[in-house]
Amino acid sequence: MEKNQFSLPVDELPTKWFNIIPHLPEPLPPPKEPENGPSRMDFLGKTMVHECLKQEMSTDPWIPIPEEIRELYIQAGRPRPLYRAKRLEKYLKLKKVRLYYKREDLSPTGSHKVNTALAQAYYAAKEGKTTLVTETGAGQWGSALSYAASIMGLKCVVFWVRAVYDWKNERRTLMKLLGAEVHASPSKETSIGRTLLAQNANHQGSLGIAVSEGLEYAEKHSDSVYCLGSVLNHVLLHQSIIGLETIKQFEIADDSPDLIVGCLGGGSNFGGIALPFAGEVLQKKRECKFLAAQSQAAPNLVKGEYRYDFGDVAEHTPLLKMYTLGHKTDMVPIKADGLRYHAAAPLISALRHHNIVKAVAYPADEKAIFEAAKIFLQTEGWLIAPESSYAVRAGIDEALKAEKAGQEKVICMNISGHGFLDLVAYKEKLEF
Amino acid sequence: MEKNQFSLPVDELPTKWFNIIPHLPEPLPPPKEPENGPSRMDFLGKTMVHECLKQEMSTDPWIPIPEEIRELYIQAGRPRPLYRAKRLEKYLKLKKVRLYYKREDLSPTGSHKVNTALAQAYYAAKEGKTTLVTETGAGQWGSALSYAASIMGLKCVVFWVRAVYDWKNERRTLMKLLGAEVHASPSKETSIGRTLLAQNANHQGSLGIAVSEGLEYAEKHSDSVYCLGSVLNHVLLHQSIIGLETIKQFEIADDSPDLIVGCLGGGSNFGGIALPFAGEVLQKKRECKFLAAQSQAAPNLVKGEYRYDFGDVAEHTPLLKMYTLGHKTDMVPIKADGLRYHAAAPLISALRHHNIVKAVAYPADEKAIFEAAKIFLQTEGWLIAPESSYAVRAGIDEALKAEKAGQEKVICMNISGHGFLDLVAYKEKLEF
Repeated sequence: MEKNQFSLPVDELPTKWFNIIPHLPEPLPPPKEPENGPSRMDFLGKTMVHECLKQEMSTDPWIPIPEEIRELYIQAGRPRPLYRAKRLEKYLKLKKVRLYYKREDLSPTGSHKVNTALAQAYYAAKEGKTTLVTETGAGQWGSALSYAASIMGLKCVVFWVRAVYDWKNERRTLMKLLGAEVHASPSKETSIGRTLLAQNANHQGSLGIAVSEGLEYAEKHSDSVYCLGSVLNHVLLHQSIIGLETIKQFEIADDSPDLIVGCLGGGSNFGGIALPFAGEVLQKKRECKFLAAQSQAAPNLVKGEYRYDFGDVAEHTPLLKMYTLGHKTDMVPIKADGLRYHAAAPLISALRHHNIVKAVAYPADEKAIFEAAKIFLQTEGWLIAPESSYAVRAGIDEALKAEKAGQEKVICMNISGHGFLDLVAYKEKLEF
Repeated sequence: MEKNQFSLPVDELPTKWFNIIPHLPEPLPPPKEPENGPSRMDFLGKTMVHECLKQEMSTDPWIPIPEEIRELYIQAGRPRPLYRAKRLEKYLKLKKVRLYYKREDLSPTGSHKVNTALAQAYYAAKEGKTTLVTETGAGQWGSALSYAASIMGLKCVVFWVRAVYDWKNERRTLMKLLGAEVHASPSKETSIGRTLLAQNANHQGSLGIAVSEGLEYAEKHSDSVYCLGSVLNHVLLHQSIIGLETIKQFEIADDSPDLIVGCLGGGSNFGGIALPFAGEVLQKKRECKFLAAQSQAAPNLVKGEYRYDFGDVAEHTPLLKMYTLGHKTDMVPIKADGLRYHAAAPLISALRHHNIVKAVAYPADEKAIFEAAKIFLQTEGWLIAPESSYAVRAGIDEALKAEKAGQEKVICMNISGHGFLDLVAYKEKLEF
């Protein structure tokens, strides 16, 4: 029997995260203070987990994963399997191309976000903090942080854009079940929230407002820390566990990828799978290419400029050098809400700048995306998140291209999350 | 680091199913024809998979799992891990009791039902059939069979009680996404359906009507087979993969259960985890007890009589000797819909009769059940199905009882499914 599933024994869960910073062709452009306003660096220093800020700047190539975090990863079901997509290959009539996928959808809250949520929760507790604060848009990050807080016995406060809070009843129930305090934003919990509500009692909110409320809350409660779920270096560092496992699993499969494909909004799942492989490419230990699958609603790597920009609409972060559409850009709504972000993480942007990462953007109607998700479900049997479906779409397209060119190729797709809470989107897009 | 997760390497997936029939203290009472009406045995012989009917009667202690089915199991994510519930133990302040759980919730459609769906689909294809037909109530079985058909490239026709079809939009979308033809029952596809619809165009249907429609459809289409998801011996045989893996995983954990707990409606997940252990008990190879967790809405093992009864409301099946509440019994609705069945599988009933299996029934308001599910989520981090929450409730209760008595005890709970499609029920029951 030819094996389709490549598991890693629990004992072989990696013991270190991989940091690509020392391997970059040029030093990573550092964060900068904007010309106006208070120091953003000082502000982050006051509101965030100190160990994470230290990791943010680290130039060590390997950062040990504390045993307690490894144990949390194992509790959360790591290592996660790598699959050979034999049935999808057969459906696509591939003879020369082999397809693989990594199963981050097996996460407790249904997305890869728990990999950094657990690390941040652990360090926060170690630093004596009792409360994790964050904002959430689509809801995946809020769920993941609620989970991590619950597992660590911490409190979690989530400010959730009211427009989404009001209709994503099920994700809201999940966060509350996990014990989180979830506020529709703008809320009465903060002065900025109260001001906005005084102007409009039914204010629909925005991600920028939710970030502002979260930061205000964290600043005012000294037992609180503010947690971020994407973009920053330490988040991608924690996510490197994905790619590190995948490298070992390809060894077990006795194969090696020529192309890594992941979806990309801010870049945390993409960085998670790609950076450990990219590090080996930069060290000339392997050859491999990298493709980020995006939406034309937020094609930061495809159409963005490589320049300094804020990470958030409300300009609370320092300026970061990123491929950006501009932090005030309006983006049309899509079902893969997790991909709607104006800029790509500094680490991914640097790799794009050096032509190591390439990107493709798919039409915002998402027809082709959900069609790919359906093919994947009907062949491989897994219901995946709309975001992950971009990776599968791009993986299929690249496979067909290589096959047509008579080119042998091994492609690995990252499945960032499951779609059990996205069936309404499936129904709407595929018109059942 | 003490391990909480015990995985079985893919290569060690069992190669045989376990059949308890030859080990029973007395021969299993055979199915019987009722006094009136046509031969039910002949009817089943015409509509069901022949290999399954052969397995139904087999007295071989081990039935080889075809390599192709093992490969399908691996595709579906087997083996599934066994966990030590260290965080739940800590929450319950257990010193003498160790808790474990088996993760059937990792299944592609979210329940253990795929274990038999894949086997039935494989044998149906081998016998030249192109279409799998079934009924579904709660929707788990319909989803699992839709999945198995999709993976095997077969057609699937599901007759779904209209009262449930109309509101479980998400499970319906899942089945349709998997390519199944899903009919609200009564439907226009069958003569019995057309007759009922002529009387009442908005007929709400029942499980009995859905079974009747499915059987009529299967009888009229010679390329079709009717598939059943619980109660019958061959279904429990296929499910024995759960317990067989668990036996090996306890060896890896260097521990051994004193009590196996599972929820029970018809008995397929309970039988799946319990029968391989019970077989060893009957062969005096181990000591272990078995507890079925039920609802007072359908307490077949607790309050039923051990006698011959039909397996379905419409009296299509032969008479089976079971603990039954009577096949025409009305049962109040509960959120754990998969537990609402009037009788326990003949194999489980025989073990209950010989006092090897015990049972407990919880109030139909389900408050205590959802409370247990919430504790499990907040400690272990997994959102489980309402049905599985009965197993956790009983596991917790037994653990606390043993702890209070100062008794050392190892308890293993089977988590039959996940709860991502049950968040509405969680919300309602826990009043968020």
